[in-house]
Amino acid sequence: MDYKKSFEGMILLDKKRIQRTTKRISYQILEEARNQKIALIGLNERGFSLAREIKQNLDEATGDDITLKQLNSEDDSTIGFKSDEVQNCALFIIDDVIFSGGTMFRSIRKVKELSAFEKIFVVVLVDRGHRKYPVLAGIVGVDAPTKLNEQVELRLKNGEPHEVVLIEK
Amino acid sequence: MDYKKSFEGMILLDKKRIQRTTKRISYQILEEARNQKIALIGLNERGFSLAREIKQNLDEATGDDITLKQLNSEDDSTIGFKSDEVQNCALFIIDDVIFSGGTMFRSIRKVKELSAFEKIFVVVLVDRGHRKYPVLAGIVGVDAPTKLNEQVELRLKNGEPHEVVLIEK
Amino acid sequence: MDYKKSFEGMILLDKKRIQRTTKRISYQILEEARNQKIALIGLNERGFSLAREIKQNLDEATGDDITLKQLNSEDDSTIGFKSDEVQNCALFIIDDVIFSGGTMFRSIRKVKELSAFEKIFVVVLVDRGHRKYPVLAGIVGVDAPTKLNEQVELRLKNGEPHEVVLIEK
Amino acid sequence: MDYKKSFEGMILLDKKRIQRTTKRISYQILEEARNQKIALIGLNERGFSLAREIKQNLDEATGDDITLKQLNSEDDSTIGFKSDEVQNCALFIIDDVIFSGGTMFRSIRKVKELSAFEKIFVVVLVDRGHRKYPVLAGIVGVDAPTKLNEQVELRLKNGEPHEVVLIEK
Repeated sequence: MDYKKSFEGMILLDKKRIQRTTKRISYQILEEARNQKIALIGLNERGFSLAREIKQNLDEATGDDITLKQLNSEDDSTIGFKSDEVQNCALFIIDDVIFSGGTMFRSIRKVKELSAFEKIFVVVLVDRGHRKYPVLAGIVGVDAPTKLNEQVELRLKNGEPHEVVLIEK
Repeated sequence: MDYKKSFEGMILLDKKRIQRTTKRISYQILEEARNQKIALIGLNERGFSLAREIKQNLDEATGDDITLKQLNSEDDSTIGFKSDEVQNCALFIIDDVIFSGGTMFRSIRKVKELSAFEKIFVVVLVDRGHRKYPVLAGIVGVDAPTKLNEQVELRLKNGEPHEVVLIEK
Repeated sequence: MDYKKSFEGMILLDKKRIQRTTKRISYQILEEARNQKIALIGLNERGFSLAREIKQNLDEATGDDITLKQLNSEDDSTIGFKSDEVQNCALFIIDDVIFSGGTMFRSIRKVKELSAFEKIFVVVLVDRGHRKYPVLAGIVGVDAPTKLNEQVELRLKNGEPHEVVLIEK
Repeated sequence: MDYKKSFEGMILLDKKRIQRTTKRISYQILEEARNQKIALIGLNERGFSLAREIKQNLDEATGDDITLKQLNSEDDSTIGFKSDEVQNCALFIIDDVIFSGGTMFRSIRKVKELSAFEKIFVVVLVDRGHRKYPVLAGIVGVDAPTKLNEQVELRLKNGEPHEVVLIEK
C-alpha cells in the first residue's frame, strides 16, 4: 500500500477513495442480490454512516427505497423485520472495519428473523485479517492486514465517512 | 475434478484421498494453533468421525491427549468446557460438508464458553460454496462447488470415513 | 447459481448482469490503479469487446482517454507501448473467460515492455477454475466453477457483450 | 502474527514451524498431483534448499524417487525435461518468498517443455502480497503481508532452512 502520512497516523483511504470504493461495493451488493430484494443494517455510528452512502447509491441505481436500519452492537437490543420485508430478500450487514469478528458475530445474532432471509452478507470497508471468530466478510473494500499493535479507524466529518487512518499504538 | 463413477453417484474422494487430506488438515490445525492448546468439536455422526481421525493424527504428532467432544447440531443441547480447558486454547469445529452454513452457524452458538477461546476455526472436508450464512471455513479439504440440485455426502464404513460422493437429485 | 435455461445452454449472465458486473469491474480497476495511469489490452474479439465497454466506463469516470489495444493470442504478433505510455502506468489485460490460463499466459508474454509497467492485472468476466498455468485473475466478474465437460462462452450481438452461456458437451 | 524478536529482525517462522509447514505443503502437493507424477524445481539456493526437504517428505510418503532440479532465476540458463518425465506429470516450482512475482514469472518462462506438463503450480513458504506480475501462488506456507519497506528472508544453516526473518529497512 502507498500510505500518505497525516499528523496522527497514516491515511489508508482518503475521502475520494472511500467514495470510489463505496460505489464499487454498492455494485457488488446489486450483483449478489440478483433478483432478490435488498435490506441493509449499519453497525453503530460508523457502519451506519457507510450504510447510508451505500443506500444512496443503491436507491439511485434501482429507483427503489432500500430498507436501512441501524444496530448497536454493544447493548442488549435486538433488531426486527416485518415478514414481508424478509421475504425473498438478501440482508447486508455493514461495518467500517472487521478484525477479530467479535462485533460482527454478536451483531448477526441480534437479527431476530435471520433465518428467514435468503442470504446474509457481511460488508466491510476494511478487512484487517487476524480473525478470532469464523466470520466471512463477503464484500470487502480493501484488505489491510495489520500488526496487532496497529489500529484502523474510519473518521467521520459531519456524520459522513471522511478518511481511514492507520494508527500505531 | 477427475471423478470416478460409482453405482450411486460420482466419488469425489476415495478412502485414500480422505486419509491424505485429513493428514494435511491435521498439520494445518497444528500450524494455526501455534503454541496454544487445541480443542476439537465434531458435529453429528460424520463430523465426529472425521474429528476422531484428526485427533489421532494430532495425538501422534504432539504426544498429547487432545480434547475432543461431539455436538448434535439439531437438538437443544449445548456444549461446555472447563475454564482450564479453554484457557490459551484454539477451538476447531469440524464437519464433513459445508454448504449454506446453517448447521455450522447454529452449532457455533451452542458453545457456551465461545468467547473464552483464543480463536475459533471451522474445519470441513468439503466446501460446496453457495453460503447463506457468513461462515468462514478456515481449513478446507477440497473445494467442490456444486449445482443446487447436487448433494455431497461423506459415507462411513464401520464408523470411519470411507468415501465422499456427489449425487444428482 | 440460479440459471435460466436458453435453447442452447444455461444463461449464466444476461446482458443486464454483464453491464452491471462490467461497471463494478471498472470501479475495481480505478481502485487498483490508485494514482497511476491505466492501459487496457483486450484479448481477441470477445476480450476486446468487453475491454471497449470498460474503457467507456473509465473514460466517463476519469474524463481521460484511456489507452486500449487489441491483442491476438493465437498468432505470432507482439504488442508494444511507447515509453511514456508505460511510465507510472498499471496494465489491465482483459478476457471474457479464464480456464486453463494458457491463452492468458501466452498473451502476457507478448507484451514487449511488460516489466516497465508498475503492475499487471488480469481481468476476466468469468473464472471457471481448473487452472493449468499459475495465472492469477486479480479482478473477476463471477466465479463459475464448471465441470470439465462444460464450456462457458460470451456471446456478442453487434459486436457487444450480450450473454454468457454454459454449454454441456 | 505473534513474532519473536531476534537480534537482526523478527522471526516469522523458527525451524520447527518451517518443518511443520513444509510437511503440510508436501501433503498438499500429493493432493494436487492426484494420480499424476510429480516433478519439482527449486529456485536458486533458498528455493532449492526448501525443495530438497519437500522431496524427502514426498519420497518417504510415496516410495518413489521424485525428480528435483535446481533453476537459477538470474542468468540466461533454461531448464529441460525428457519427454517421459513430463508425461502425465504435475510440475511444482518452489521458492522461499514471493513478492512482486518477477522472479517466479521469469523462472516459469525458462522451463522449455512447460506446456507438456499436466499442471504447473507455484509453491512458496511465504507470500508477502503486493504482486506486480499476475502470478498465482497455489500452495502457500504462510501469508505475511508486509509493508514495502520490510523484507522477508529465509536463512539457511548448513544449507538447510533455518528461520524466516522479517527485517525493517
